[in-house]
Amino acid sequence: MLTFQLEKTSAAARAGTLTVNGHIIPTPIFMPVGTAGSVKALPPTDLALLGAPIVLGNTYHLYLRPGTDIVRRAGGLHRFSGWNGAILTDSGGYQIFSLQELRKIEAEGVRFRSHLDGSEHFFTPEGVYDIQAALGSDIAMVLDVCTPYPATENQAADDLRTTLDWARRSRERYQLVGAKGPTHQFGIIQGSVYPALRQQSVEVLKTVGFDGYAIGGLSVGEPKNFMFDTISTTAPLMPVDRPRYLMGVGTPADIVRGISLGIDMFDCVLPTRNGRNGMAFTWDGPIPVKAARYSEDFGPLDPDCSCPVCSNYTRAYIRHLFNAREIAAMMLTTRHNLFFYLDLVHRARLAITMDRFDQFAREFLNRYAEVSEANE
Amino acid sequence: MLTFQLEKTSAAARAGTLTVNGHIIPTPIFMPVGTAGSVKALPPTDLALLGAPIVLGNTYHLYLRPGTDIVRRAGGLHRFSGWNGAILTDSGGYQIFSLQELRKIEAEGVRFRSHLDGSEHFFTPEGVYDIQAALGSDIAMVLDVCTPYPATENQAADDLRTTLDWARRSRERYQLVGAKGPTHQFGIIQGSVYPALRQQSVEVLKTVGFDGYAIGGLSVGEPKNFMFDTISTTAPLMPVDRPRYLMGVGTPADIVRGISLGIDMFDCVLPTRNGRNGMAFTWDGPIPVKAARYSEDFGPLDPDCSCPVCSNYTRAYIRHLFNAREIAAMMLTTRHNLFFYLDLVHRARLAITMDRFDQFAREFLNRYAEVSEANE
Repeated sequence: MLTFQLEKTSAAARAGTLTVNGHIIPTPIFMPVGTAGSVKALPPTDLALLGAPIVLGNTYHLYLRPGTDIVRRAGGLHRFSGWNGAILTDSGGYQIFSLQELRKIEAEGVRFRSHLDGSEHFFTPEGVYDIQAALGSDIAMVLDVCTPYPATENQAADDLRTTLDWARRSRERYQLVGAKGPTHQFGIIQGSVYPALRQQSVEVLKTVGFDGYAIGGLSVGEPKNFMFDTISTTAPLMPVDRPRYLMGVGTPADIVRGISLGIDMFDCVLPTRNGRNGMAFTWDGPIPVKAARYSEDFGPLDPDCSCPVCSNYTRAYIRHLFNAREIAAMMLTTRHNLFFYLDLVHRARLAITMDRFDQFAREFLNRYAEVSEANE
Repeated sequence: MLTFQLEKTSAAARAGTLTVNGHIIPTPIFMPVGTAGSVKALPPTDLALLGAPIVLGNTYHLYLRPGTDIVRRAGGLHRFSGWNGAILTDSGGYQIFSLQELRKIEAEGVRFRSHLDGSEHFFTPEGVYDIQAALGSDIAMVLDVCTPYPATENQAADDLRTTLDWARRSRERYQLVGAKGPTHQFGIIQGSVYPALRQQSVEVLKTVGFDGYAIGGLSVGEPKNFMFDTISTTAPLMPVDRPRYLMGVGTPADIVRGISLGIDMFDCVLPTRNGRNGMAFTWDGPIPVKAARYSEDFGPLDPDCSCPVCSNYTRAYIRHLFNAREIAAMMLTTRHNLFFYLDLVHRARLAITMDRFDQFAREFLNRYAEVSEANE
């Protein structure tokens, strides 16, 4: 069962509740990325302690390792990984299209070589849904063609034709084998930075009909204003009564702007990847906690954070752990960063329910030192 | 304040309670090694969740990085690291004497070069106590000369003369600056595998008088029977009313045998280092959880373990995480292994209080597959 209840709007920003297979997900929500069946440096029971209701799993990675069959025989990804929250799985499309020379798009699907051992594989829209159903995913993203940036309008239109054809086939597969099962399905809007293509994409996907809709193909190297222009022209065309997911985005400021444009769901590797590299997010902007200037800073990573890391540890200590190349440094900064992202969408949701989201966003963006994100 | 209450004996095995600065430590106890201010892959708040009452810190490492002054200005190692349990710090002697070509013993102390940057340093018995007091350690080990194995009796006697001279000076420093403070002090018995030297060492240290006594210089490459012969001749000479600490030992079987010989305290890198390398301890012996044969083993690391890892995760999942080179694999196996070691000394203590330790030890050693420890 998947339901979406839109509870409150504040200008274009939306507060809702996504319920899937008994998992209750307040929106807007940020989904941590659990590539290989665990968020990096944060195993599932630790992630649960941060209050995360949903995690993203990568179909491409899980299919290759440990392999779909092992996860299926374990009883699905929830049981295999010991994660009791909801799981959304991407289609693998993004990973495959990042392989560059190792892949070939055909009408039927996409041929690619494993980055692990060079072995050849073939993903079809139907096969990818079947993999995700075998993983026991709660929300399965359709296989799509992620158009790189830059691309001409003709290239983007070609890719979109394939994407929309695959979307229809994905939904047919879902209707055939998944409609009564736990694995629901979201469509993905492509079309690069071309408004006409994005509009066409939404229209067709709405006709096909999905449980939710995602904006894909952004945050792939295009200038930020192109990204926000695309979101602001696309989001209003998306169904009001279905969750709207902006894939692979982004910085805290991007997320606040995305929420202001009506987005409900986000995912990004930034809090985890940057955490492992020594970048801690704060309400004043990210800080490079490895830097020598924090060696005797006995305050928390962020004085306005109530996470288990900020309650117990100082910048000086975490800086020392990074300096000593201790795994604990990556663990603690990952925890803090994910808590920060979850806290951010939680505070945004509160602001929406009180119909003062614009004020919240303005205050956040004024305070948050965007410029430091150059380091990201 | 440091007190030791011997509560029960079962043959030579002892159950007691060590209380230091308000920290209550049931003995026998295993102390996880927190080299650089954190147990590797297990930051202090995580370690606390496993119920560990005391951790070992390495003076050599902390002195070099982050440096004594930073820890002191943070308010000591407890506050610097966010650890609320007790802390025992070694003297750095073992690390320095492992440096081989980088150190030189003089009558006054030991000169050595940092393994980090080659800078020259000089440790004296007095200076090392002062460092440990600045770290705010609850129990400070004296600076000693760790005689390598093998060594002739003359070499060992020479080293012991220095060790005992340094022990006297250490205690004088303690009496002068530390007697009323929180940093208590243990003496270290040396003498290699020579019973007469070990006996001389104990006698002199008892005359000097310490808050506790350790057997050092074992587990440095000597055959196991030499180690146990040395423990069994040395332990009975040690004061009954003071804690007895066997430094750097050992495997689970070593610890059970050590307890049967009257040892109260242990430390070792085995559960943490081997955990990071994919070796999980179980009541049937260690298992190489990375091995392909566990890829579809959906049982816990150890069916007889009630740790947070065994309650939530399977061998197949942890094997997958190792295979995918996820930090989470090292985190989870470290947690399980330390819980196993803490559970082992806890069960041993229960057996002692019920005066059936011999039976416990026999059953443990019969079941525990020592042979697998070849892999350690």
